Parts: sequence; C-alpha cells; structure tokens
Amino acid sequence: MENRQLILQSRPKGLLAPGDLKLVESPLPELQDGQALARVKYLSIDPTMRVWMAMDSYLPVVAIGEVMRAFGFAEIVESRHPEYKKGDRVTGLTGLQDYVVLDASSQSFQRVPKIPFVSDTMFLGLLGINGLTAYFGMEIAQAKKGETLVVSAAAGATGSIVGQIGKIRSCHVVGIAGTDEKCNWVTKDLGFDAAINYKHPDWKVKLAAAVPNGIDIDFENVGGDIMNTVLGLMNLHGRVVLCGLISGYTKEDPGLVSPGTILVKRLRVEGFIILDYVPRFMEAATQLGQWKMFGKIKDRETIVEGLEKAPDAINMLFTGGNTGKLIVKV
Amino acid sequence: MENRQLILQSRPKGLLAPGDLKLVESPLPELQDGQALARVKYLSIDPTMRVWMAMDSYLPVVAIGEVMRAFGFAEIVESRHPEYKKGDRVTGLTGLQDYVVLDASSQSFQRVPKIPFVSDTMFLGLLGINGLTAYFGMEIAQAKKGETLVVSAAAGATGSIVGQIGKIRSCHVVGIAGTDEKCNWVTKDLGFDAAINYKHPDWKVKLAAAVPNGIDIDFENVGGDIMNTVLGLMNLHGRVVLCGLISGYTKEDPGLVSPGTILVKRLRVEGFIILDYVPRFMEAATQLGQWKMFGKIKDRETIVEGLEKAPDAINMLFTGGNTGKLIVKV
Repeated sequence: MENRQLILQSRPKGLLAPGDLKLVESPLPELQDGQALARVKYLSIDPTMRVWMAMDSYLPVVAIGEVMRAFGFAEIVESRHPEYKKGDRVTGLTGLQDYVVLDASSQSFQRVPKIPFVSDTMFLGLLGINGLTAYFGMEIAQAKKGETLVVSAAAGATGSIVGQIGKIRSCHVVGIAGTDEKCNWVTKDLGFDAAINYKHPDWKVKLAAAVPNGIDIDFENVGGDIMNTVLGLMNLHGRVVLCGLISGYTKEDPGLVSPGTILVKRLRVEGFIILDYVPRFMEAATQLGQWKMFGKIKDRETIVEGLEKAPDAINMLFTGGNTGKLIVKV
Repeated sequence: MENRQLILQSRPKGLLAPGDLKLVESPLPELQDGQALARVKYLSIDPTMRVWMAMDSYLPVVAIGEVMRAFGFAEIVESRHPEYKKGDRVTGLTGLQDYVVLDASSQSFQRVPKIPFVSDTMFLGLLGINGLTAYFGMEIAQAKKGETLVVSAAAGATGSIVGQIGKIRSCHVVGIAGTDEKCNWVTKDLGFDAAINYKHPDWKVKLAAAVPNGIDIDFENVGGDIMNTVLGLMNLHGRVVLCGLISGYTKEDPGLVSPGTILVKRLRVEGFIILDYVPRFMEAATQLGQWKMFGKIKDRETIVEGLEKAPDAINMLFTGGNTGKLIVKV
C-alpha cells in the first residue's frame, strides 16, 4: 500500500510557495506489534501550521524532510495495538498524509465516539481545537453580562464560536472580519451585535461607533494594526485574550504592542495555548455539544477536496478565503 | 506670606531643560472658611511626574501654567477647615510648592499619624506610594515559594521593596540596576540573591546565568531593552507585573513588546496603577510597617535640599542618580 505525504521541503517566506510542501509517495511499512494503521479522512487546516513551518514555538518547528504536522480525523483500518481496533475513530496529530501509524508514542491521539447528529468534521472544529480554544479563551476573558467583547478573525473557526459564547454570556459582541459576506454571516446568522469589515477605509471609525461603551474584552486572533486599534478603544481594567496573531504569521513585521497602553489602562493581557487544557477537553466538548444541540451555537465549514490541495488551503487562511472551519477532505 | 511654586512652562523633550519648570513667587491668598493652609515639608520625586508633564495618562496632563503636580508631606499651619487643625500632618498631591491650600476638593489628602520610629519621609516611600506599589504589585504577581522573581530599577524606591517582599515570599530574587554600588546594596544589604548591572556589556549573559531555572515573575519598572531581555528568559505561564516603563519616559522610542512572546509563553501581563487600591492602603501600610519593625524590609532615601532643586531631582531618576526613595526637602 502506498502512502501520500506532504513533506516540508523549505521554510516559506510569506505565503506558501509551490515546493515548500512536496507530495511524495512511499510504501507503508509493515505493521509491528503495538502499532495501528489509521486512514486519515479529514485534516484540520489551522493558522498555527504556518508557525510550525517557520520556527520553534509551543511545539518544535517541523524539520525539513518531515511530514508536515497537522491535526486530523482518522479511522483505524488495521491494528496490532492493544488499545485500538479496526473501525475506531481518532483525532490527533495525523500529519498531512493519507495514512498514519499509531504506536505507544502517539500521545496526541484520542478516540472519539459516534454521536447522533455529530459529523466527523465537527470533531476537528466545534468539538475540536477551535471550539475548545474558544471555550477556554472565554474562561480567561471572564466575560460579564453587558460587557463589550470584540473578536478579530470573527468569521474564522475560532472567532465565530467565541462571539456566540459571548452572546450566551450576554455580552455586546462586535466582530472584525475581512469581507462584507463574513460580516453578514456573523451578524445575521450567528447573532453578533455588529461586525466591521477591516478592509473598508473607515473601519476604525465604524469600530469605535460599534462600541459606544468602549471595549472590555479583546479576543485577539489577528495582531498588528487590528490589535492596536482595538487596544486603543479598550476600557480601564480590560482583558486581552491573546489567542492568535495571524496577521504576523506570513510577514517579517511582528506587529508589536505598546506596554504603555497596557499599563495606563491597567489591562490584563494573557496568552494561552489550548494544549495546556487537555485534561479538561471532555468538560468543554460536553458543554459545546449541548450548546450546539440547543441551537445556541452554529458552525460552518469550508471543505477543500484532496490532500494535494492542503498547501493552497493553508494559504486561504491568510488571504481570507475561508469562512468557518477550514478542512481538507483527504 | 509668599509662596514659591514650580510652574510648568513647557513640556520637556527628553530630560527636563532649564525653564521647563519655572520658580515663581506669589502671595498666599487669604484663607477662606472651609480651607486649611499646609506647609509642604517633603516632596516625593517619582518617574510618573515626567509622564504627567507630557501627556494624559491615568491622570490628566498638567496644564501649561499650572503648579507641577507632585505627592508631598505637609503640616497644617492654619485652618478654617472642619477636618484639619493646626499641627495635623497630611500626605497628598501637594504640588511642587512651599504651601498648599486644602479645601473640600482636596480629595487626594489623608491625615497621617505620629508613629514612633516612623520618620515623616517614610510616609512618602515605604509607607507611601512606593511601598504600596510594591505590595499590591506583588499581590498581582502571585509569587510562590521557590519561584524566580526579576525586578528592574531594583535599587529604586519601589524595586528595592519589591525584591524584599520577594525574599519574604521565599523567591529567588534577581535585581537589575545601573551601577555596581546599587547592585551591591540590594544583594549585601537587602538580601537579593543576585543583581545585574545593565551597563556592563555582558549583562544579558550574566542575567541568564543568574536565573538558572528561568524567570517566573517580571516586576517591570523599566521597559524597553531590559523588559524584552527579561521576557526572553521567562518561563511558560510567567507573570509580568507592569508597574513602570521609566526607560521610555524621556524618549521618543516607546519600547514595544512582542505579543508573540506573550502568546507562545502563555504569559499574563498586567498593568496596574496604585490609585486603584486606595481603599486598601491601610491594610498594606500596616503590613509594610510590621515588616519594617521586624527588620524584614529596609529602606533608604536620597534627599535633595531645596524646592528649587526639584527639577534636577526629577532628572536624577532618569540618569540613575538616586538610590532608594528620592525626596526633596522643601
């Protein structure tokens, strides 16, 4: 059996160029005792992958010549592993490939149950990284009723859930996104109070008008000029949940911030990474699932077909091509 | 009776220039019902004054033509005020002048008691702004036994107390200061575990060597290159207490920081201003007084004689001229 893999050939500068990830085919190794073979069905395409390609961060950089790291959903097709049997479904760091071999060292994997009305891809989005990130990030935010929450990348997989949790918490929720269509989606379908298209020349004026009581919480997914504009509108004792800095991932400019603003406004700026919350994933997924079941949270997916399209899909994150969760169907 | 006042004539660029503050003499107005006249005895010289001269911050900028704002210690010499009698001692925003008139609008003032072994000036330093700032800042830091605390401007009025509270909390305490003499003071007299002179060319290497387990808490008084160097050595889930940014107060360069570092290291960066803690001042002063009485905290003062020397004294803060609390004796 052959396995197609996307191998990191060179570290991208800006957007991924052809050849940064190279598709190679190689035969699958014979399965050993203690191993299981899983067919990757869906891949989660996340901005953090661009960081993994470039530098050590909260995980080591992907080495040149390695299979590109990615979260995915897979199904066990053959097992000599004590904990998995054929047909089991798992999520974890499958990598960008057709098949992944699980063994004792595959600590990122967890078995996922079959739940009525829950699609396979939902384990990557709403009940996966993005939902969990929104849930724990909003815990850090300590949003109180009536407070104003601004979320950037509002139509993205994480931002769209963040804003809906903000509405569940009775906040005034304003999203920032990059197209009018995305803004319409989060206000008309998801119930955000307002949304600002940051590509309109007067977006800063519109944002200020949309937050008449100032901003209490910045759920920051973007960084750079967007983050600094939001910081400028924040209230005393506001909270900044630092979740992502996508505007800087493809640029040399790191999008710095002024500690003077943090000091004078007595802000609390807190960085977080979802991997720190693994022991509480079940608690969060249960709550997110309930909200979904009762119609309090809606999700949406952009699905790209074919493993070979994964590099283009990664670039879509930085050019604004997707709405909601971006997934590659292998 | 004549009152000498230092009036803000122009907003300084960099250090204060002659003429930015102008000494003028004017007769004291006749005391009205509801007013008290206080003789200013000591003035607290603080880095924040440089900010007050330049821009709106947590307090409005001092207007051109106004008496320069300053904390001070004063004694009532005449009173037609229901709450003050002759001989009462007060601290508050006296301004840089010989006399201050208190009336119903003088909300920053509070009467201070006579306590054996407590000098008048201690109400401006250890039991005043600096001690309170150190106390509440260390509360935000949530220092745990065995953690590593780094404090910049370590030989300053606030930093020197911060480090000693760190030792009371059983932390590994490393100070950063600008002369070997200051470094010796905080290690030999105050019990810091190490101190680094940031004017030595290899100070960054020495700092790294002084924190073999990384840095858990940055009590930040300086900003700029010093802050960024400390951030680079911080542990995951470290805390940054943003108290001051003195390196930027006399410069155009605001000394920006990378939100990427905050994110990847999951830092919590929190700005605070001591004025938010007014209702808890007595609690803090009582604790600080006990520590002082039992020899757990030592303080030191640099006293400059003469109101007319106040502008030079303010500049001393930015050129490293003082050790411990800087005070002008009027």
